[in-house]
Amino acid sequence: MDLDTLRDAHPDHWNRAAALRFLAMDAVAAANSGHTGMPMGMADVATVLFSKHMKFDAKAPDWADRDRFILSAGHGSMLLYGLLYLTGYEDMTLDELKNFRQWGSKTAGHPEYGHAKGIETTTGPLGQGIATSVGFAIAEESLRAKFGKKIVDHHTYVIAGDGCLMEGVSQEAIALAGHLKLSNLIVFWDNNDITIDGKVSLADSVDQVKRFDAAGWHTQFIDGHDPNAIHAAIQAAKKAGKPSMIACKTHIALGSSAQDTAKGHGALTDEKLIADTREAYGWSHAPFDIPADIKSWWEEVGRRGAAEREAWNDRVESLGAGKRATFDRMMSGEMPKKLAGTIRALKKQVSETAPKVATRKSSEMVLEVINPVVGETLGGSADLTGSNNTLTADLGIFTAEDRKGRYIHYGIREHGMAAAMNGIALHGGLRPYGGTFFVFTDYARPAVRLSALMGNPVIYVMTHDSIGLGEDGPTHQPVEHLAMCRATPNTLVFRPADTVETAEAWELALTTTDKPSILALTRQGLPTVRTDHKTRNLVAQGAYVLAEAEGKRQAVLLASGSEVSVAMAAREALQAEGIGTRVVSVPCMELFWQQDDAYRRKVLPASAVRVAVEAGVRQGWDGMLLGERGREAKAGFVGMDSFGASAPAGELFEKFGITADAVAEKVKSLL
Amino acid sequence: MDLDTLRDAHPDHWNRAAALRFLAMDAVAAANSGHTGMPMGMADVATVLFSKHMKFDAKAPDWADRDRFILSAGHGSMLLYGLLYLTGYEDMTLDELKNFRQWGSKTAGHPEYGHAKGIETTTGPLGQGIATSVGFAIAEESLRAKFGKKIVDHHTYVIAGDGCLMEGVSQEAIALAGHLKLSNLIVFWDNNDITIDGKVSLADSVDQVKRFDAAGWHTQFIDGHDPNAIHAAIQAAKKAGKPSMIACKTHIALGSSAQDTAKGHGALTDEKLIADTREAYGWSHAPFDIPADIKSWWEEVGRRGAAEREAWNDRVESLGAGKRATFDRMMSGEMPKKLAGTIRALKKQVSETAPKVATRKSSEMVLEVINPVVGETLGGSADLTGSNNTLTADLGIFTAEDRKGRYIHYGIREHGMAAAMNGIALHGGLRPYGGTFFVFTDYARPAVRLSALMGNPVIYVMTHDSIGLGEDGPTHQPVEHLAMCRATPNTLVFRPADTVETAEAWELALTTTDKPSILALTRQGLPTVRTDHKTRNLVAQGAYVLAEAEGKRQAVLLASGSEVSVAMAAREALQAEGIGTRVVSVPCMELFWQQDDAYRRKVLPASAVRVAVEAGVRQGWDGMLLGERGREAKAGFVGMDSFGASAPAGELFEKFGITADAVAEKVKSLL
Repeated sequence: MDLDTLRDAHPDHWNRAAALRFLAMDAVAAANSGHTGMPMGMADVATVLFSKHMKFDAKAPDWADRDRFILSAGHGSMLLYGLLYLTGYEDMTLDELKNFRQWGSKTAGHPEYGHAKGIETTTGPLGQGIATSVGFAIAEESLRAKFGKKIVDHHTYVIAGDGCLMEGVSQEAIALAGHLKLSNLIVFWDNNDITIDGKVSLADSVDQVKRFDAAGWHTQFIDGHDPNAIHAAIQAAKKAGKPSMIACKTHIALGSSAQDTAKGHGALTDEKLIADTREAYGWSHAPFDIPADIKSWWEEVGRRGAAEREAWNDRVESLGAGKRATFDRMMSGEMPKKLAGTIRALKKQVSETAPKVATRKSSEMVLEVINPVVGETLGGSADLTGSNNTLTADLGIFTAEDRKGRYIHYGIREHGMAAAMNGIALHGGLRPYGGTFFVFTDYARPAVRLSALMGNPVIYVMTHDSIGLGEDGPTHQPVEHLAMCRATPNTLVFRPADTVETAEAWELALTTTDKPSILALTRQGLPTVRTDHKTRNLVAQGAYVLAEAEGKRQAVLLASGSEVSVAMAAREALQAEGIGTRVVSVPCMELFWQQDDAYRRKVLPASAVRVAVEAGVRQGWDGMLLGERGREAKAGFVGMDSFGASAPAGELFEKFGITADAVAEKVKSLL
Repeated sequence: MDLDTLRDAHPDHWNRAAALRFLAMDAVAAANSGHTGMPMGMADVATVLFSKHMKFDAKAPDWADRDRFILSAGHGSMLLYGLLYLTGYEDMTLDELKNFRQWGSKTAGHPEYGHAKGIETTTGPLGQGIATSVGFAIAEESLRAKFGKKIVDHHTYVIAGDGCLMEGVSQEAIALAGHLKLSNLIVFWDNNDITIDGKVSLADSVDQVKRFDAAGWHTQFIDGHDPNAIHAAIQAAKKAGKPSMIACKTHIALGSSAQDTAKGHGALTDEKLIADTREAYGWSHAPFDIPADIKSWWEEVGRRGAAEREAWNDRVESLGAGKRATFDRMMSGEMPKKLAGTIRALKKQVSETAPKVATRKSSEMVLEVINPVVGETLGGSADLTGSNNTLTADLGIFTAEDRKGRYIHYGIREHGMAAAMNGIALHGGLRPYGGTFFVFTDYARPAVRLSALMGNPVIYVMTHDSIGLGEDGPTHQPVEHLAMCRATPNTLVFRPADTVETAEAWELALTTTDKPSILALTRQGLPTVRTDHKTRNLVAQGAYVLAEAEGKRQAVLLASGSEVSVAMAAREALQAEGIGTRVVSVPCMELFWQQDDAYRRKVLPASAVRVAVEAGVRQGWDGMLLGERGREAKAGFVGMDSFGASAPAGELFEKFGITADAVAEKVKSLL
C-alpha cells in the first residue's frame, strides 16, 4: 500500500483519519496491551461513516432516533473510543484514552455497555455485535410501525471482522436479517485477510459476498481506504431496500511495519515501529496530541446532528398527548401502571380455580393478560412456538411485510434469537421475550452471558425444564442448566411451581430493568400449590414458607418448580408419621440472597434438618442447605447426578428417584 | 404428490422404502410420541443410500473402514433404527422398535451413541450431526494419509434438515469442510419446507444451495423421492473432489394426510390417519410386520459389504507388523506404553528446575514431549494457536493439500471445533485436542455437553482461565465457567497449579477413554508448587495434601490452579502466626469424589476450619467445604461473586480481594 498516494488523493481526510489511527496506536502503547491493527485498518471507513452519514449528536447521546454504531470487532475498541473522544462525547475524555484498559476507566479492553455513552452494546466475543445489531434493526422497524417515520427513522451500522463472520451466530443473524428485509441495517466487513493465527486463508475459503447474497442481502465490494468509494457504497446501501453488506478491502495496521500480518492484529508497542509509522503518515504530533484544526473538525462532526435532533424534538412534542406519553414511557423502560392490577387479578382467579397445568401453559395464561396491557412486549420463539406457549392471540407476526406484528419467528436459531433480543432491549422502547427448550440455553449461552454482563433485561422463556419432558431423552433434558444459570452473575433464574408463581415471576421479570430473567418452565402439568390468594408478590422474596410444619418443626423441605408438589406430598407423608415438616418454595435463589439476614433465618431456621429436591444437579443448592459458613444444619439433596434418559416422564421421576418417598426417606435418614 | 405415480415408477423400491416408513409410523404410534414425518420423507434417500452406496456389514458393525451414516436430523431417529433393524444389526431387534422411547430400550427418542451399534454419534440438538460429521471426515483423511487408501477409504454420509442448517454451527461446519476440501463428506439436505412452527418461509429465505456453493461445496438439487435421481446424485457427489451437498426436495410425512404440514413433523398417532396412509401406500401389513421378501432384501443389503470387509481384513493383515500394531493400537484407543515414562521424566525435570511459567505454557511443554510419542493426537485451536500454546514443533498443519499434518487451524469457530473433535474421537484412531479461551467454552457448549453425554474422550485446552488474563476485561474473563463445567455430568475438569500438575492432568486426559477432559489453564505465570518429585500421579486423586500443617492443624486451605500459590502464601502467613495450616491442591473435583471415604476424610479432616480460594464463583465448592450432609466444618470462600473487569491482572486480584491476605483473614474470622 502506498501511503503517499492515499494521502495525496485525500489530504484532509487523511489527517482526520490519522487522528483516529494514532489515538489507537498511542493508547495501546500506553497500556502495553490491546489491538492496534483494526483501528488503523478501518479508520477510513469510520471517518466517512461518522462525518457523512451517522445521525447523532455527541452532546445528546441518548437521542432516541440516533443512528446506532456497533463495533462487532470489539477488540478494536480504541476505534470507538477515539471516535467518541474526537466528536466530543463528554464522558470520553483524553484522560480516559490515556487510561485505556486500566482499572476504573471507561475504556475497557473491549467496549462495555454502560461504561460510556456511545457504547451501544458490549462486544468482544466475536459475532455478538453483528447478531445484536439485528435486534437493533428489528426494534427500529417495530417502533417506526408504531410511532411513524417522523419519530423513528434511523440506521444501524456495524463493523464486523473475519472473526465475526466465521462464528456461527453470524449466519443466524444474517439469515434472520435477510429474511426480515431489515433495510436500515448496514454492515461493513473489515476484509483484511488476517486473523490471530495468520492469514484468513489458513482456516477459511468462504466467498462472504456470495454468502450474504444467498441470505438475501445487498452486497458491495470496495476499497476500504478510498473515502469516495466508502461514501458511495453507504449511499447505495441506504437505498438497497434490504440489509446491506459492504466488503471493505483493508490493510490491517495500515502504514506500520506490521501491516498485513497477524502481528498487526495485536498490540503494536515497539518504539521504533511507532516512530516509523508516525513518519510514514507524516504525523509528527506527540502521543495523544491531536492538532486543534483536526479536533475542531471532528467536534463539528459531533454537532452535525444537533439541528436534526431539535427538529425531531419538535416532532415528538407535536405528537398527540396520549401517543407522546406512550412513547416516553416505552422509551423509559417503565411498565404501564395497569400491569400490577392485571397480575393480581390473574393470581386471584387461578388461586381460586386451581388449574392443573404445565407452567409453560401458565406462562401463556400470564402472557395472554400481559400482552394486551404491555404494548412494548416483542415475543418470539426459536421455532418452538406451540411448545414454549409464547404466542398470544393479539400479537400478530412481525414480518418483512408487516412491521406491526409483535411476535417473531426466529427460526431454529437460539443464539441469534438471544443476541437479537439483546439488541431489541438495548435499543430501548421494547421488551423482548423469547422461547426455546431450557436445554438449548446452551446454544444461546454466549448471548445470555452478555445479557447478564450488560444488565440487559431480556426475558428468556425456557420450557421443558427437566427430565419431566420425557421421551425426547437426555439430549433434550436439562440437568446442569439450573446450576449454570444460577452460577452466572447478575441473572434472575425463576423456576415457578404453578400459575400463581409464574405470574409473579413474569411481573418481576418485566419490572426488573437491570438484569435478564430466565424462566424455567415445565412441559408436564403441575397442581396449583398457591391456592391461598395473597396480593403480595411472594416470589419477590426468592423463597418463602409455602406450608408450615404442624407440631414441632423437625424438617424443612426446599424445592422449586415441578418438585414443589413433590415436597408437599413428602410433607404430608412425614406429618402423618408425626414429623413436623415445613415446605419452602424456592422460585428464585438470587432474590432470596438479596433478602436480609432476619428473613433468611426465619425461612431457614438452623435447628431443623433440611432436604432440597430439584430435578437437576445439587450444585447451587448448598448455600441454602448448609449455610454460607457451614455447621448450620444437617442436610440432604434429592435430584439428578447423571444425564437423563428417554422414557415417559412419570417413569423417569421414579427411576431417578425424585419422589415424595425418596424425600421423606432422606429426611428420616438425617433425623 | 401422487403416490401412485411414484409407486408405479419403482414398485420394488417403493415397498422397500415403505418398510422404513411404516416401521417409523408404527413405532411412533406405539410410543404415542416421536417424529413420524422425517422418516416418511427421507425413506427414499435412505433406501438408495444403504442399498447402493453405504459400505457396511451389519454383522461387523465396528469395521474400521465402514462408511459412517450420521442422522443429523436426530428427531427422525426411527429412520435410523428402522435401517439398523431391517439390515440385520443384531442388537436392533423388533422388540427394540416396539419399545421406542421407553425406559431401558436402545431406541431412545433421539439416537444415543452407545445404545446400539450403527449409531455413530448422538444427535438431536440440531446442527450437531452435520458439524460432527466434519470431524469424521477429517479423521478419515488423516488416517488415510497415515495408513494408505487400501486401509482407510470410506465416506461420511449425513442427513440434515432445515433446523440443522439454520443453526449457526452448521455454517462453521460447512465453512471448515469446504476449506479443507473433505471430498468424502456427502450431506443430504431434507429440503421439505417445514419446521415445527410451520413453513420454513416463516423464518428463513436463505438460498442454501448458493450458501454451500459459497463455502466451496459441490451442490446438487434433486427430487428426493426419485430413486434414480438419488443414485445419480450420490455417484456425482463421490466424484466431486470436494464436500457435496445434495438438496433433496421431499415431502414431510409423505402420503399421510399430514403431508407437507408442521403437524406432519411430529407424532402421527391418529388411527384413521394411520389407516388411510396404509391404504394410500397399499401397505396392508399389521404394525411392525415386514413381509419376508422385503426383510430378506434388506438383510441382503446388510451383508453387501461382507466380502469387501474380508478383503480389507486381508489387506490389514498384510500390513507390516509394526504398522499393523500401530493401526490396531490406535483404533483401540489405548495409549502407547511410552507415555507414562515420558510424563514421569518431564515431571522429574520440572520438579527440579521449578520454572515459573503459565500453565498454558506448561501444557505446551507437556505437548512437546507427548506429541512425538502419541502419534494419534490431532491438535488444533480456534484461531488462538499462539495463546493456547497448542501447536508443537513436530505436528505440521492438516490442510486440503497435506493430510499428514496433525494440527488444524479451526478458524474462529469454537463450536464447530468442538463438534468436529467429537467426530474425530468417535471415528476412532485419533485423539483430538483443541484450544480456545476458557470463557468461550460458552460458544462450544452444546458440543461439549455431547462429549460428556456420549462419554467421548475429547480434550479441551482452555486457556486464560480467570481474571488473571487481565486487560481484555469481563467479556473474556471466565467467572462462572468452572462451576458450569463441574456441574456437567461425566466431565473431568482439570485446573492444574503448575507444570507438574499439568503433566499429570494431560496423562489422565489421554488415558481416560469414557469422558471428555477440560483443562483450564492460566495466561499468567505461576510458580512451581510441586518441587518434590513423586512418580505417582497425584492429580489422579482429584485433591491431595500439598503442604501439611506445622503444629496443631487448625485450618485447611483448598485451592486450584493459579490460587494454589495464593493458598501457599496464606499458609505461610498463618503459620507465622502459629496457626497450623494445611494446603490441599484440588486439580480435579470429579476425581476427588471418586476416591473412597477414608481418603476423602484424610484429606479433609472434619475438625479444621476450611477455606477455599479460586478466582471463580463459589458454586461447586460447597461439597468440599461443607461436606454432603453439612455440620462437618466451619468454612469460607474467597473468590468472585461478580463479573471481572479490564485492568492488569495483578491489580484485578487485589481489587477483587483474591489474595493471600484475604485468605488468611477469612481463616482467622472463622477460628
